[in-house]
Amino acid sequence: MFAFHVDATDSSTAARAGRWVTPHGVVETPAFMPVGTRATVKGVWPQQLADVGTQMVLANTYHLALRPGEEVVADLGGLHGFMNWDGPILTDSGGFQVFSLADLRSLDDEKVVFRSHIDGSLLELSPERAIAIQEALGADCIMCLDECPPLPSDREKLQAAVDRTTKWARRCRDAQRRDDQALFGIVQGGTDPQMRERSAEGLRPLEFAGYAIGGLSVGETPEEMYRTLDFTAPLLPDDRPRYLMGVGRPIDLVEAVQRGVDLFDCVMPTRNARNAAAFTSVGTVKMRNLRHQRDESPLDPACDCPTCTQFSRAYLRHLFVTGEMLGPMALSVHNIAYYQRLLRDLRSAIRENRTQEFVATVGLF
Amino acid sequence: MFAFHVDATDSSTAARAGRWVTPHGVVETPAFMPVGTRATVKGVWPQQLADVGTQMVLANTYHLALRPGEEVVADLGGLHGFMNWDGPILTDSGGFQVFSLADLRSLDDEKVVFRSHIDGSLLELSPERAIAIQEALGADCIMCLDECPPLPSDREKLQAAVDRTTKWARRCRDAQRRDDQALFGIVQGGTDPQMRERSAEGLRPLEFAGYAIGGLSVGETPEEMYRTLDFTAPLLPDDRPRYLMGVGRPIDLVEAVQRGVDLFDCVMPTRNARNAAAFTSVGTVKMRNLRHQRDESPLDPACDCPTCTQFSRAYLRHLFVTGEMLGPMALSVHNIAYYQRLLRDLRSAIRENRTQEFVATVGLF
Repeated sequence: MFAFHVDATDSSTAARAGRWVTPHGVVETPAFMPVGTRATVKGVWPQQLADVGTQMVLANTYHLALRPGEEVVADLGGLHGFMNWDGPILTDSGGFQVFSLADLRSLDDEKVVFRSHIDGSLLELSPERAIAIQEALGADCIMCLDECPPLPSDREKLQAAVDRTTKWARRCRDAQRRDDQALFGIVQGGTDPQMRERSAEGLRPLEFAGYAIGGLSVGETPEEMYRTLDFTAPLLPDDRPRYLMGVGRPIDLVEAVQRGVDLFDCVMPTRNARNAAAFTSVGTVKMRNLRHQRDESPLDPACDCPTCTQFSRAYLRHLFVTGEMLGPMALSVHNIAYYQRLLRDLRSAIRENRTQEFVATVGLF
Repeated sequence: MFAFHVDATDSSTAARAGRWVTPHGVVETPAFMPVGTRATVKGVWPQQLADVGTQMVLANTYHLALRPGEEVVADLGGLHGFMNWDGPILTDSGGFQVFSLADLRSLDDEKVVFRSHIDGSLLELSPERAIAIQEALGADCIMCLDECPPLPSDREKLQAAVDRTTKWARRCRDAQRRDDQALFGIVQGGTDPQMRERSAEGLRPLEFAGYAIGGLSVGETPEEMYRTLDFTAPLLPDDRPRYLMGVGRPIDLVEAVQRGVDLFDCVMPTRNARNAAAFTSVGTVKMRNLRHQRDESPLDPACDCPTCTQFSRAYLRHLFVTGEMLGPMALSVHNIAYYQRLLRDLRSAIRENRTQEFVATVGLF
């Protein structure tokens, strides 16, 4: 039901282009997943996601378990039917939110208990429960529950998180009942080479369908992240997809692809859009800036998205200055289109063995 | 450049079906214009408006004069290019906002001076200025500046408003320079038959391209409004479009059409959508209601809009409960689709001389 084919490997970097077969279609990699935290990518219609080249989307286990509850989603035919997205979907495990969002009550080897950020009710998340929720949600790809410490953390803390994540990964694997969902292990270990190796060594024998690199974009510098990818990606099996969680800026994606990463997700294109910041081929553009006031030109002349073909910069500025919904809507579609075009161009460059030439000319900001 | 053809008149009511030719296309009447106050119908892409049957939209002179300013819109090719709407557009005169929104500074026969609700700056609006702004904005149909008193008002106040509105109408007509915009006079007079007659008698000799009925939906009951239409519509020329400003609920439109009204605008479909209230063939639906929690059925089984064909009630409820943008977006498209289908069905019924049968069966809520 799942197969990952590496079709091309760049000769001068670790970049690779492939096809990942899932029950809801083939994902050409490297690929970027827009984030639909609560089963909707904020401000964007599902059809628009597909129209600008989105192959796969991410949804959030923690948020959906709280509202509307995984049984509700299951009753309604699972996430695909619920959010009207027929393509592949990935759910994270809820682990990241446990550490970033919730008022943590207790964390031990057995489980996490935390307070809902919505109504204060208690939610228990064990490895078994994380898998059960994700099986009810019904995504194509699901994640093991992990512990993600902030950076910087000392080695003792990193090692404890690595070891707990490894134990939980085994329990997640043993808890899995459905055979139509690819379960990914998550490598932790911060920016410490020995800790990353310890984590990868613990997970590899469990033979996951893919491996995520977690614990990055949590306080370290971009250079620390790239260096961590340098030594972490080679620790993971060549024949399985590698997924860098929660990253990042366009330049981060390009750097990570050159280090052998295949999958990405990030809220940046949609969150920045809501804050009036656009990614374009000529740099990042702050849409509220007065200089756009009478600018008839499109946001990005190199873009064929609905926003760039229909609206001027002057109109987009007007929408943001007056607080109109169409501003964030239009910029979200554009920013996702920008990310998808970047990944599509990267895939072509890798297949044509000209990754570095492409990177040198693309102009990332 | 403008022509209004009445193609069919219902034999048992004053309803009529026609075609109104404008520089940007033919509007089949009776017609409903969604409101794009600041050159955007809130939460809806222009293409979606057209897809659900919108022929013409309204934009607001007062708001656009303040932001971005009419010269900016003119520089960018006028409203059609600015908001990417190729169909007919109507702008109101700003008169209604002068009375409803602004901190009024002075009102005399010469002009209105008021404070901007945004930054406190002073804006002067005279009949000449109202026309100049609307010529810069470039809509197909523009409105005379009028004085719209609240209801109830005593006869003295109504008569003063009628007489000022008549004087201003003449000045608007004399100020008009462009010949590619249909200028409408606005009948005032509250719910008082003599005042409405006085107003219509003042305006008819000015030979406007169409006549608006203003000063309703400002405090009177629906029955008072219908009675006012009973005696006001016959005062207006048969061969010009009649436009009931700012009205209203689906049932109000149906009642007004039966009294000879051809054009409508109202914020209700989009404003109610943002408040999670949907118009459907089975009644109004409050989308946050718990009863939708597991309801797989579409919002309105009789509707073929993108919302009803793609999303379940359960999903729509989830979007509203979690505060996701797609909720208001989806409900706005649906509510506009509901209004446009109602008007389309009304047009067919009038052309087939079965208006009353249609009204008896349509089920308005």
